[in-house]
Amino acid sequence: MTKTLLEKLNWRYATKKMDPSKTVPQEKIDLILEAIRMAPTSSGTQPFEVLVVSNPDTRAEIRKVAWDQAQVTEASHFLVFAAWDNYTEARIDAVVKQLEEERGASEMLTGYYDNLKATYLPRDAEVNHNHAARQAYIALGFALAAAAEVEVDSTPMEGFDPAKVDEILGLRAMGLRSVILLPLGYRQEEGDWLVNMKKVRKPRSGFVTEVA
Amino acid sequence: MTKTLLEKLNWRYATKKMDPSKTVPQEKIDLILEAIRMAPTSSGTQPFEVLVVSNPDTRAEIRKVAWDQAQVTEASHFLVFAAWDNYTEARIDAVVKQLEEERGASEMLTGYYDNLKATYLPRDAEVNHNHAARQAYIALGFALAAAAEVEVDSTPMEGFDPAKVDEILGLRAMGLRSVILLPLGYRQEEGDWLVNMKKVRKPRSGFVTEVA
Repeated sequence: MTKTLLEKLNWRYATKKMDPSKTVPQEKIDLILEAIRMAPTSSGTQPFEVLVVSNPDTRAEIRKVAWDQAQVTEASHFLVFAAWDNYTEARIDAVVKQLEEERGASEMLTGYYDNLKATYLPRDAEVNHNHAARQAYIALGFALAAAAEVEVDSTPMEGFDPAKVDEILGLRAMGLRSVILLPLGYRQEEGDWLVNMKKVRKPRSGFVTEVA
Repeated sequence: MTKTLLEKLNWRYATKKMDPSKTVPQEKIDLILEAIRMAPTSSGTQPFEVLVVSNPDTRAEIRKVAWDQAQVTEASHFLVFAAWDNYTEARIDAVVKQLEEERGASEMLTGYYDNLKATYLPRDAEVNHNHAARQAYIALGFALAAAAEVEVDSTPMEGFDPAKVDEILGLRAMGLRSVILLPLGYRQEEGDWLVNMKKVRKPRSGFVTEVA
């Protein structure tokens, strides 16, 4: 019997030990990347990019600034989510241009994004980057759900020095800042202290409140 | 033939017109709430709560401070994601207590969360709230994926006045701040300007970069 999505979300956990001898098939990686690309973002700007880092030297460099977490180099694949450092007129214009090409131009469209510019462009870069980063986290949710769906293990990581990862990957020159690392691969049960521990979540009461 | 998760993620869109006559069965709502509860969060703190607002007056009040978006009152169900206003010692202690109860006490556990306190507690409340909000966005991704999986429409909304929603729901007294609204229901195709428009996403090239 096929597992339900919920069973798969329950199966997934933050894998602490990836098996370095196992490779995720490219079609599963493509599916996870497609899920990321499908994720909704505020006003459809998709204000982040994803880097698939396969270069072993680069991954070794990143591991050094990520608390030496072994999954960075031992996982089959390694993604970096990098959010826009700021919203700019050129970036929003590119969004509008693509929408016009695919849906046709309209005053409603132009008016909407003119308003967006009036809100975003005067704001502090840090506020805009934080907003962009949140959108990347929706896509992270999609990536984790899609990985679980195809039974690929994943370890979302915030434990790293973003400025150093930006430097290693040359992200600032691309107008990007790293926000999350995502090793993908297959768990190696021996050597993973977490794999056999009970999944702990708050009970629904206290976490979900009904306002009737 | 059952649709794949990717087909379902492609089927979903930010529904602009919900059919007010259709109700999502409770088992589907429960499944979406379970997906939210299963979502991973940084250090397992689950630093947000979900409110299921069914009171029509409350929903009408929220609609007024959410650009009068009709889905707030017309959707079958209406969720509010509210993130912790700050990390506090008591909140982290409660996380540790639950982990100890379910997995047993250990020095590793205590040490880990002592370090976390040393990092989080001196930080500005705004930084901590932003960090908590990002975790809620992962769960939002899970909610949207789970809703799509069971063919429930959804409209993630950032377009509202958070301070006013906090006031309507009394969130600040609970140490919470609203970060995202999520109507759930069934699309009403007539009256939805977006439903028949092409889904627009950036092509993979330019959005995904291979670092080989």
